[in-house]
Amino acid sequence: MAAWGERLAGVRGVLLDISGVLYDGGEDGGSPIPGSVEAVARLKRSRLKVRFCTNESQKSRGNLVGLLRRLGFDISEGEVTAPAPAASLILKERGLRPHLLVHDGVRSEFDQNDMSNPNCVVIADAGEAFSYQNMNKAFQVLMELENPVLISLGKGRYYKETSGLMLDVGAYTKALEYACGIEAEVVGKPSPEYFRSALKEMAVEAHEAQR
Amino acid sequence: MAAWGERLAGVRGVLLDISGVLYDGGEDGGSPIPGSVEAVARLKRSRLKVRFCTNESQKSRGNLVGLLRRLGFDISEGEVTAPAPAASLILKERGLRPHLLVHDGVRSEFDQNDMSNPNCVVIADAGEAFSYQNMNKAFQVLMELENPVLISLGKGRYYKETSGLMLDVGAYTKALEYACGIEAEVVGKPSPEYFRSALKEMAVEAHEAQR
Repeated sequence: MAAWGERLAGVRGVLLDISGVLYDGGEDGGSPIPGSVEAVARLKRSRLKVRFCTNESQKSRGNLVGLLRRLGFDISEGEVTAPAPAASLILKERGLRPHLLVHDGVRSEFDQNDMSNPNCVVIADAGEAFSYQNMNKAFQVLMELENPVLISLGKGRYYKETSGLMLDVGAYTKALEYACGIEAEVVGKPSPEYFRSALKEMAVEAHEAQR
Repeated sequence: MAAWGERLAGVRGVLLDISGVLYDGGEDGGSPIPGSVEAVARLKRSRLKVRFCTNESQKSRGNLVGLLRRLGFDISEGEVTAPAPAASLILKERGLRPHLLVHDGVRSEFDQNDMSNPNCVVIADAGEAFSYQNMNKAFQVLMELENPVLISLGKGRYYKETSGLMLDVGAYTKALEYACGIEAEVVGKPSPEYFRSALKEMAVEAHEAQR
């Protein structure tokens, strides 16, 4: 394996994931992964630009950053690329009025969106809010649209909490895709568009970045 | 279109679906589809053998037949092919001990199965029981198995109730397939094996049947 100095030659920026990389979530808020608080601090002291690029879609950016700061991380809201604010912008640009199938914790990210008479569905990691009733409502909204648009914040299969493995948004997106015979648009990783927007926010080209 | 007499030449048996063909379900139990009670009666007076082949997996066969009789249909339990009793037999033959993700109404069909230390998951149209907690539990059971077996009672996308369209088991099966990276085995329509078992039960060959 090449030495770090060699591997990092030409690298100007680093994209860091958050969940499962900086910390593991849990009912108590979660806990930092050993060494990660110090690693972030060292990166920030270095010549490298640092940005946090997450698929976290249960919490607003503000709540996520608040949690991470309480866990000891040096991080601010402006340093985080998250799918909900990115989706909110896309909805506005395209004149889309969302029906939200999301966790209550992230709902505030869509405060600027018109929710009347929905013409699309936005699905995020809703956790317990993935009830049959809520899934069925989202399904019915899609089936009533002439051109159903489903926007999925990420497509993760599952993630790890301190209590065990948890189904992620991708599984529920597949359920709606199959029921409606449609394909979702993904806002979040692994969409190349999403990575590009994170790089743009730290003014680094793709070939100059490491994740 | 050929006259019925011509189309039925050589036909000895008829397989009838139940939900959406004989009746539409609903919170009040549902209502017969106009003409269907009389159509079943006429078929039964004819020289044709009749069998009912359903993917209904929310109710036990006994409960389903009880409901249909109250709606006016001449039908008995022995005339019905349903996925839950078929799956129960398959489980026993293969030494599989199921974790059930099913509606309470159909649970009794698995009374003869060993549920200790599950080595597979059986998923059916669970309706409101498709909570996040129940889906996650089934997911965790599968992820802990070296060779995860998921048996799905049908693969319907959705069905119609008097109150509107409802997500069916197929959507939730897709969610678990995606999350676990596996493919479910389907017991129920459209599995050819399932149709064959229904034909065998009325002693009719495939080329002699009409559905």
